[in-house]
Amino acid sequence: MKTYVIGVDVGGTNIKLGLVNPTGRIISKTRLDTKSFGADKTKLIDALVAAIRSLLDKNKIKKQDILGMGIGLPGLIDPQLGIVRQLPNIPGWKDVPLGQLLKNKLKIPIFIENDVKLISLAEWKYGAGRGCSDFICITLGTGIGGGLIFNNKLYTGPGFVAGEIGHIPIKENGIPCPCGGRGCFERYVGNGYLLQKARRIFKDSRICLPDVRIMAERGNKKAIQFWHEVGETLAQGLIGVTNLLNPRMIIIGGGVANNFPRFAPVLRGLVKKHAMKVQGKMVRIVRARFVEGAGILGADVLVRQACRE
Amino acid sequence: MKTYVIGVDVGGTNIKLGLVNPTGRIISKTRLDTKSFGADKTKLIDALVAAIRSLLDKNKIKKQDILGMGIGLPGLIDPQLGIVRQLPNIPGWKDVPLGQLLKNKLKIPIFIENDVKLISLAEWKYGAGRGCSDFICITLGTGIGGGLIFNNKLYTGPGFVAGEIGHIPIKENGIPCPCGGRGCFERYVGNGYLLQKARRIFKDSRICLPDVRIMAERGNKKAIQFWHEVGETLAQGLIGVTNLLNPRMIIIGGGVANNFPRFAPVLRGLVKKHAMKVQGKMVRIVRARFVEGAGILGADVLVRQACRE
Repeated sequence: MKTYVIGVDVGGTNIKLGLVNPTGRIISKTRLDTKSFGADKTKLIDALVAAIRSLLDKNKIKKQDILGMGIGLPGLIDPQLGIVRQLPNIPGWKDVPLGQLLKNKLKIPIFIENDVKLISLAEWKYGAGRGCSDFICITLGTGIGGGLIFNNKLYTGPGFVAGEIGHIPIKENGIPCPCGGRGCFERYVGNGYLLQKARRIFKDSRICLPDVRIMAERGNKKAIQFWHEVGETLAQGLIGVTNLLNPRMIIIGGGVANNFPRFAPVLRGLVKKHAMKVQGKMVRIVRARFVEGAGILGADVLVRQACRE
Repeated sequence: MKTYVIGVDVGGTNIKLGLVNPTGRIISKTRLDTKSFGADKTKLIDALVAAIRSLLDKNKIKKQDILGMGIGLPGLIDPQLGIVRQLPNIPGWKDVPLGQLLKNKLKIPIFIENDVKLISLAEWKYGAGRGCSDFICITLGTGIGGGLIFNNKLYTGPGFVAGEIGHIPIKENGIPCPCGGRGCFERYVGNGYLLQKARRIFKDSRICLPDVRIMAERGNKKAIQFWHEVGETLAQGLIGVTNLLNPRMIIIGGGVANNFPRFAPVLRGLVKKHAMKVQGKMVRIVRARFVEGAGILGADVLVRQACRE
């Protein structure tokens, strides 16, 4: 019976592959090194196919047991046509019909989607958003990604790019953004900005964000203040989104969310104070459940939803 | 056969009532003066009931020909329970079970909703948004209202307040807003702000926005610049919304939209320039079709959708 799903999470560093059983458990995993393929996407696709075949062999699972394969990629995706439009951090990918290419080789149904959208689906089905019909999921990392769950469904918009919460301007005439905008939310709370800010504050060019976390945990006042200010900046972006979309939850994931306990009280306080009454009262701001493996589980949700429709 | 709908549009000044036939034409209209009832909502409801009865009599339409009645109100509405939570500009309305009250008197199905949401439905079914699955409708007046159409449906959010586009902050540490926020979009493009600005620029305490329109039409440079700046401010709010929601259209209505030809070129240019590539290319910014009567038609759409479900 077709009950297993292959989930693939393509990142700038690693490609994670997992076999998901019908109860949503990842029963077997493997990974590839993204950078080892350079810009050679044919080689990458061949390696992916080989890795999947060996994953199935190892687990004694036949193709006829596979419902489908879901793949999350960090960039612009056309899920309807199965085309990877562009991957900002992986060179050589422009308008690649990945869905068709993999289908030709593996002869199983293939579904592709943006990686943050898959994380949102994983949080909805298995994570912090379980049982919640309407929420926003954001990932804090180099960029700020976002996924929108409306009425228990992922909302992608007609161009499949809805959710770009990182590109809401929060400062007038602010820092120019590679997206073409100015003062985008992402510019003030992305890893790059935070790292620069930390290095300036602590006058240490080698300091990293986990160091600032440890310092805050040990009571360093400047480090505590640093994370408070992250909470303030997050509030600047999220108050407007809360007013506009009236979500039940805002789920925060990504690397910077490791500091959730340090920025959340300030963020929650400001949203309650400055968002509109109904919206502010209703919204819960929580940490994502998944740090690792959300992409694979999200791919599982994507495939099972698509195959049920 | 139940084919007619009664549409009611409650405003701070007038209450408009209309009888809508199956093809979406308002075949008969009447109106009441909102202010004449003061804070006496019982009197208002009784007058509404009497007006509906006389509207039906006049048109020789029986109750059994009525599919239902839809009512749009300017404030916080719980459409599920049929309760008017609060109307900022009409005193005496707090947690009024209007749906039930009217149903008891008229014995027909009653549906209530926020007025801007009904305008969005009217634009979707009969107006500028016809055939468009995903758009944002905004009304520019004293406040900025908004309605979200996603996948051919009105999205209200779990608390029925989604769409509050006027309360996205666009300036850091900006003007405090009665909503509890600071620097809200509405504060910089609502009628009150524009009027103050016009009076300052033209050093004339009696000037009104239509005067500034006429001056711009006659080539007055300051007046032309005034509307350009309205376009710039609109862009500040709408770029973020475009990036976040990837709408196919932004439909602009309300009184200030009478100046659409004067602010639209600047607004469109800035959105194309500063929104993200896919979103900016995709979105069309257009003027609403309806100025008068959108509320009644929206009520018609609301009733017909609800009765079909």
